[in-house]
Amino acid sequence: MKILVINGPNLNLLGQREPGVYGADSLDAILARLTALAIDLGVQLDTFQSNHEGALIDRLHAAMGEVDGVLINPGAYTHTSIALRDAFLATRLPFVEVHLSNVYAREAFRHKSLLADIARGQVMGFGPDSYMLGLRGLVDGLRRAR
Amino acid sequence: MKILVINGPNLNLLGQREPGVYGADSLDAILARLTALAIDLGVQLDTFQSNHEGALIDRLHAAMGEVDGVLINPGAYTHTSIALRDAFLATRLPFVEVHLSNVYAREAFRHKSLLADIARGQVMGFGPDSYMLGLRGLVDGLRRAR
Amino acid sequence: MKILVINGPNLNLLGQREPGVYGADSLDAILARLTALAIDLGVQLDTFQSNHEGALIDRLHAAMGEVDGVLINPGAYTHTSIALRDAFLATRLPFVEVHLSNVYAREAFRHKSLLADIARGQVMGFGPDSYMLGLRGLVDGLRRAR
Amino acid sequence: MKILVINGPNLNLLGQREPGVYGADSLDAILARLTALAIDLGVQLDTFQSNHEGALIDRLHAAMGEVDGVLINPGAYTHTSIALRDAFLATRLPFVEVHLSNVYAREAFRHKSLLADIARGQVMGFGPDSYMLGLRGLVDGLRRAR
Amino acid sequence: MKILVINGPNLNLLGQREPGVYGADSLDAILARLTALAIDLGVQLDTFQSNHEGALIDRLHAAMGEVDGVLINPGAYTHTSIALRDAFLATRLPFVEVHLSNVYAREAFRHKSLLADIARGQVMGFGPDSYMLGLRGLVDGLRRAR
Amino acid sequence: MKILVINGPNLNLLGQREPGVYGADSLDAILARLTALAIDLGVQLDTFQSNHEGALIDRLHAAMGEVDGVLINPGAYTHTSIALRDAFLATRLPFVEVHLSNVYAREAFRHKSLLADIARGQVMGFGPDSYMLGLRGLVDGLRRAR
Amino acid sequence: MKILVINGPNLNLLGQREPGVYGADSLDAILARLTALAIDLGVQLDTFQSNHEGALIDRLHAAMGEVDGVLINPGAYTHTSIALRDAFLATRLPFVEVHLSNVYAREAFRHKSLLADIARGQVMGFGPDSYMLGLRGLVDGLRRAR
Amino acid sequence: MKILVINGPNLNLLGQREPGVYGADSLDAILARLTALAIDLGVQLDTFQSNHEGALIDRLHAAMGEVDGVLINPGAYTHTSIALRDAFLATRLPFVEVHLSNVYAREAFRHKSLLADIARGQVMGFGPDSYMLGLRGLVDGLRRAR
Amino acid sequence: MKILVINGPNLNLLGQREPGVYGADSLDAILARLTALAIDLGVQLDTFQSNHEGALIDRLHAAMGEVDGVLINPGAYTHTSIALRDAFLATRLPFVEVHLSNVYAREAFRHKSLLADIARGQVMGFGPDSYMLGLRGLVDGLRRAR
Amino acid sequence: MKILVINGPNLNLLGQREPGVYGADSLDAILARLTALAIDLGVQLDTFQSNHEGALIDRLHAAMGEVDGVLINPGAYTHTSIALRDAFLATRLPFVEVHLSNVYAREAFRHKSLLADIARGQVMGFGPDSYMLGLRGLVDGLRRAR
Amino acid sequence: MKILVINGPNLNLLGQREPGVYGADSLDAILARLTALAIDLGVQLDTFQSNHEGALIDRLHAAMGEVDGVLINPGAYTHTSIALRDAFLATRLPFVEVHLSNVYAREAFRHKSLLADIARGQVMGFGPDSYMLGLRGLVDGLRRAR
Amino acid sequence: MKILVINGPNLNLLGQREPGVYGADSLDAILARLTALAIDLGVQLDTFQSNHEGALIDRLHAAMGEVDGVLINPGAYTHTSIALRDAFLATRLPFVEVHLSNVYAREAFRHKSLLADIARGQVMGFGPDSYMLGLRGLVDGLRRAR
Repeated sequence: MKILVINGPNLNLLGQREPGVYGADSLDAILARLTALAIDLGVQLDTFQSNHEGALIDRLHAAMGEVDGVLINPGAYTHTSIALRDAFLATRLPFVEVHLSNVYAREAFRHKSLLADIARGQVMGFGPDSYMLGLRGLVDGLRRAR
Repeated sequence: MKILVINGPNLNLLGQREPGVYGADSLDAILARLTALAIDLGVQLDTFQSNHEGALIDRLHAAMGEVDGVLINPGAYTHTSIALRDAFLATRLPFVEVHLSNVYAREAFRHKSLLADIARGQVMGFGPDSYMLGLRGLVDGLRRAR
Repeated sequence: MKILVINGPNLNLLGQREPGVYGADSLDAILARLTALAIDLGVQLDTFQSNHEGALIDRLHAAMGEVDGVLINPGAYTHTSIALRDAFLATRLPFVEVHLSNVYAREAFRHKSLLADIARGQVMGFGPDSYMLGLRGLVDGLRRAR
Repeated sequence: MKILVINGPNLNLLGQREPGVYGADSLDAILARLTALAIDLGVQLDTFQSNHEGALIDRLHAAMGEVDGVLINPGAYTHTSIALRDAFLATRLPFVEVHLSNVYAREAFRHKSLLADIARGQVMGFGPDSYMLGLRGLVDGLRRAR
Repeated sequence: MKILVINGPNLNLLGQREPGVYGADSLDAILARLTALAIDLGVQLDTFQSNHEGALIDRLHAAMGEVDGVLINPGAYTHTSIALRDAFLATRLPFVEVHLSNVYAREAFRHKSLLADIARGQVMGFGPDSYMLGLRGLVDGLRRAR
Repeated sequence: MKILVINGPNLNLLGQREPGVYGADSLDAILARLTALAIDLGVQLDTFQSNHEGALIDRLHAAMGEVDGVLINPGAYTHTSIALRDAFLATRLPFVEVHLSNVYAREAFRHKSLLADIARGQVMGFGPDSYMLGLRGLVDGLRRAR
Repeated sequence: MKILVINGPNLNLLGQREPGVYGADSLDAILARLTALAIDLGVQLDTFQSNHEGALIDRLHAAMGEVDGVLINPGAYTHTSIALRDAFLATRLPFVEVHLSNVYAREAFRHKSLLADIARGQVMGFGPDSYMLGLRGLVDGLRRAR
Repeated sequence: MKILVINGPNLNLLGQREPGVYGADSLDAILARLTALAIDLGVQLDTFQSNHEGALIDRLHAAMGEVDGVLINPGAYTHTSIALRDAFLATRLPFVEVHLSNVYAREAFRHKSLLADIARGQVMGFGPDSYMLGLRGLVDGLRRAR
Repeated sequence: MKILVINGPNLNLLGQREPGVYGADSLDAILARLTALAIDLGVQLDTFQSNHEGALIDRLHAAMGEVDGVLINPGAYTHTSIALRDAFLATRLPFVEVHLSNVYAREAFRHKSLLADIARGQVMGFGPDSYMLGLRGLVDGLRRAR
Repeated sequence: MKILVINGPNLNLLGQREPGVYGADSLDAILARLTALAIDLGVQLDTFQSNHEGALIDRLHAAMGEVDGVLINPGAYTHTSIALRDAFLATRLPFVEVHLSNVYAREAFRHKSLLADIARGQVMGFGPDSYMLGLRGLVDGLRRAR
Repeated sequence: MKILVINGPNLNLLGQREPGVYGADSLDAILARLTALAIDLGVQLDTFQSNHEGALIDRLHAAMGEVDGVLINPGAYTHTSIALRDAFLATRLPFVEVHLSNVYAREAFRHKSLLADIARGQVMGFGPDSYMLGLRGLVDGLRRAR
Repeated sequence: MKILVINGPNLNLLGQREPGVYGADSLDAILARLTALAIDLGVQLDTFQSNHEGALIDRLHAAMGEVDGVLINPGAYTHTSIALRDAFLATRLPFVEVHLSNVYAREAFRHKSLLADIARGQVMGFGPDSYMLGLRGLVDGLRRAR
């Protein structure tokens, strides 16, 4: 089983970026922990980060027929990208949406996700653990569906 | 470490209730799986279910000084109970909010949670796995905060 | 055929309560007229009144497999209780919603029913006759569906 | 006692029109059942159907001093005709509003009635039975008011 | 100079209709007073009343090239008829909008006029005098524009 | 009979101010025409203009017991001054509201009048004629009420 | 194959009506061009225009079983007539909605169509060409569906 | 004269609950101060606290004919309980609404009270003094009304 | 301790102004009662009334360093004056907001206070007693804060 | 005459993407049909597809002075890209907007187009025929404007 | 060239007023810096401050024909004064709007300016530098327009 | 001191693009003037323009530790890019937002800036001078903060 892990805009700055909100771990550190968990769970990970909405969509398209599911932290595109939503609808890739911070404790424009209603599940607010929990949830769900 | 697991209104009917939305597992079956996980994680569980908003609040009050955190599926009170929110603010008990179904794929009045912005984290849409992931997230977070 | 008649909050005060809005009949007087009609229609009635949202939900749960339909005047919970809505969805009990007064001639927050769209039918504004008409409509509908 | 039964736009197509929503009975069949009930209740019926808002208003004006009450299914004009509302206010004819389908289970623009708050009562969702219940409620109310 | 006086739905019932709101004068009485004023002002009047939105529009079309201006009390169509607005835009007939009652002291849905922003002027709340003032204003304006 | 004519903010600049919107007549010219009409109608005029909301209120207070009615063009305070509304409610002085321009053809914030629903009548859009029509309407109404 | 072409209110004035918005062609000229295209496409046209909402509905009802599809420019009823929508739902006639002008470049109340979501397609803004394109689209779609 | 003092959900935790918002006094301490004031004012106090909406309603019903007025801090039910509002309407008990904190300086959902418009008066933001001022206001008002 | 008592627009007409809403006491009578209470409480009063928003602000500025707190009934400026709010923010004078009538039982535009969230407390609906309660609350709060 | 055909995000997946919504034709198949039509109409086509908002804008800029008009299916950027709108305003390229599906029968956030009001025309809901109709409309319009 | 510098309500307290928001400079200090800059730019300054909306309007009227442009910090009247807007429209004086603080980082009711859309430009958030930048922008613009 | 000047989508077309709105200067001409000013102010400029949201974000990330502040005209991304906002939050780069045109005199969707509340300041409406004023304000602010 192969899982694509996608990180959206500004997540490359994790650790440096507003540590009070997002924590002190870098994206690499989080992905390292996630890879360790993937090994435990017996799945393979592919990772991708971009600040470009179009690049995220291109990557999803390329993943069709290649991965079994997607773990995504869409960053700010959560709230503004109908195109990303359409990419999930078009590719039919099952996915789980994760967020480091508690989006409901922030600005009102972060309360609306354009992806959540078509996701397999959503995990939010646990810091880097959101990725770990999201991966477990995604893998368990995919295994059960087989 | 002791965790209180609270289930709100109508969750006693799980398995019988709209299985297309909530799945075929009874609440007892879910709690049995959750207890097994709790043993793995080395924590103790207390469970409580009620259809009465006031009873949920009373139970939370009683839990002060007695449990380390709360895992709650507030059911319909998620969307209507400011009193439950106040109970969490008053008791200062750390909690994680879980939902079986994807609330964003349902009626608009289910999209607003009165608890989410004060929760440690939220897990939604994974069916019974939401409880498992929520417990892991709560316990990991509490251990890290020590 | 057995019908459960549920009356929500403050309906125990009928006759005493705002007679200009709700009329001078007590709840007992209305239920007596309703029982007479039930005998005519050849159905059995069970009645329940409570001011507690949770108690109304508990009663509905207990009615599963025991009654054929529910006639409910949810009172103020019409407008605020998603939990009561969920109880109907969970128990799949067919029901008819009745109101004594014309809710549309009152405060705007009474114009929205959280139950109406899942009811078999709704009768409103006829005073105590709303119950009589609602019972006829419920029984006729259930008989036709057999 | 004489009752005018008014049917608004598209109700002439009943039976042919969206049977999943409105049932398989033609308007004639419903009016035949209603006439039988009227005989039982000892009242006379006059019926009128038009797709023209103005014609419905003209008919109401003509009914002043001629009928004791009106049973109306205003169809789509329920939601758009302030002129029809004004015709009821102007003629002071007591009326009951009925709908075949459950309007709250349909498009949002069908949730608002411009007549409901000035009606004697409203019956909705029982299919053709809505007319029968509405007629009973109207006649009983008029008799009581004498 | 020739002026067309148009009265919309339910205005044929003036005097009988809600005298507390619209006064005790019949439409004929008002038009008689208006005709007397027209003679004083040296203009000719044509009058038309209908409860049919389409008939009002047809009459406006027929008036092109035949009248110099229109005095209209659009009744309830004030608030719902974009078609009537379009008839004024299409015919380019200058018009004044009048109302007997103070529409701002009534239901919120009467506060919006679909005609007002394209009218030469609006007179409201003076009872039958609204027609007299409106005619004066229309005639004076047309004379000045020559 | 004595009428107070009040002009609100910026109306002292009439003739200079946006002639495309308000016309080329100065306020003095309009008041001269109005005075001529007052003589015809056999009433006395008092006039007052201020750019100060408080001064307009003070003047209204002083007019109690001294004038029979008020003709007011409240200018921009139409849309923002609840205090002016309260001054009319407090003094119980009957008044007519006039506007030179068609407020509905302008910015949305000019569509709401805080005075209109408590006025005897409103005249709008006729340019300086709005004052003449408003005075006629006010005087006729006051005479009829005697 | 037979197509009914319906034109709603005020479209009889095309050419005379706001030529800056709707163009200089009369409705007859447009229908002549449309008939020529129909001959090319090998279909028969029936045409109907009315300013009466009810007449448009009556005509649609009469068309059941008689025509294969409808090309409609509903004019102002686009935005206000739920009854027309219901007529399409009731008759199940496939239809295409066309507009001469770009409705989105006009008043906000013209941005909402009550028909668009149940149309086969919508063409807007091309002037008289909207009819030609709409007919092509309707005929091609009907042929493909055979 | 007898006054019932009602405290709603979570107020039993006063002193422990968010002292930054609600102050350091326990409910018992506040009620002791209130009782001392009652003795000064020559009135008798009955007190009741519950976290159950239904229990608050039951208590109000029981108070009919037994107490002269009610001093209530409805806590979170201020903002969500139409049933509590109905209980006051039904029992016709005069009441004063008090809040410890300044609700307008908190979350937007706390700005709306479902009770305020039917209360004798409202006191807010003075901490425990709100109760003292509310009791004075209630007692003075009741005495004046005798 | 010195307290400034400010009364906003139209409050000079108390007793004459809408006695059904505001009571029959004149402002002087209320201030006399308030002065008597101030003597009891051992504080000095300064009073000021104006219908001018700017004058109220000027008076507040002048009070800096001169008074210990402000008791204000801002009248209609409660709902429209951000400038008055800013004056309180700028001067940092502690204040209590009082209203004679129950603002929530009146027009919707009176439900929003631009001052309430920065006030020490708010008292509303007790008639002239609102001033007495407000003064007590203000003085007690200031004494406790010393 | 040269026309640029632009396809926005996810349209490269046509045929594979939600065939129930978008049909079974690939983008290449549609463009082949479109090219055939272009030859018939005697115009040249240039085509471009990208998932990148910025790339679509870059391509439009490059088209200035090079093409006569643009046929665009902006996909999800229809609803979110003010930048694309600005690119059309900046380049002044005449364009027609097309959509395969009926956007009004889908999620509410697809009902708003940020391009429609500045387009020459819009065609929606005809599946691949939308492109054909759009091209005809664009070419006819451009030829007429010469 | 002569520039009028207007400061609205509460700006006389600058330096004393919320220094965290508005900085520690007094208005005199800012105007001194501004005068120095005016000398550099070769323009003359007139300054005016008032807490009275009417006085600001009076001052603007007096400035007609006397000054070349206006630099204004309207304070709270930015958000509430349509009368001030009208004064600028009436006098046609070119003006620049400046704010010390970042209004978008404050309460929502400060986000709307009733002047901004008719200003030559707006400068916000730079503290006292906002005045300096605004003056430069105003003078440069006026010189270029000559 | 080094300042990065960022220009968002379509600003590369300045001079060609809607000169009525944006003026006749090309971006190069503006940057040349800006560079001259930078030399005067003793600061170094780096410039960047892109139509790609992602590229603007990448450039900001690269600027961390390299520049002292950012002057940005975000073009259309002002209103739609939460990702750009997050890039500023993540990099903590102080920035000033400038606009050539008066955004408040344009479409409503241009009135909301997603950046303004976190900017050091905003300058708008002065045409190319907005850049000059913005640079002065940014540099002065940065120097003062040292």
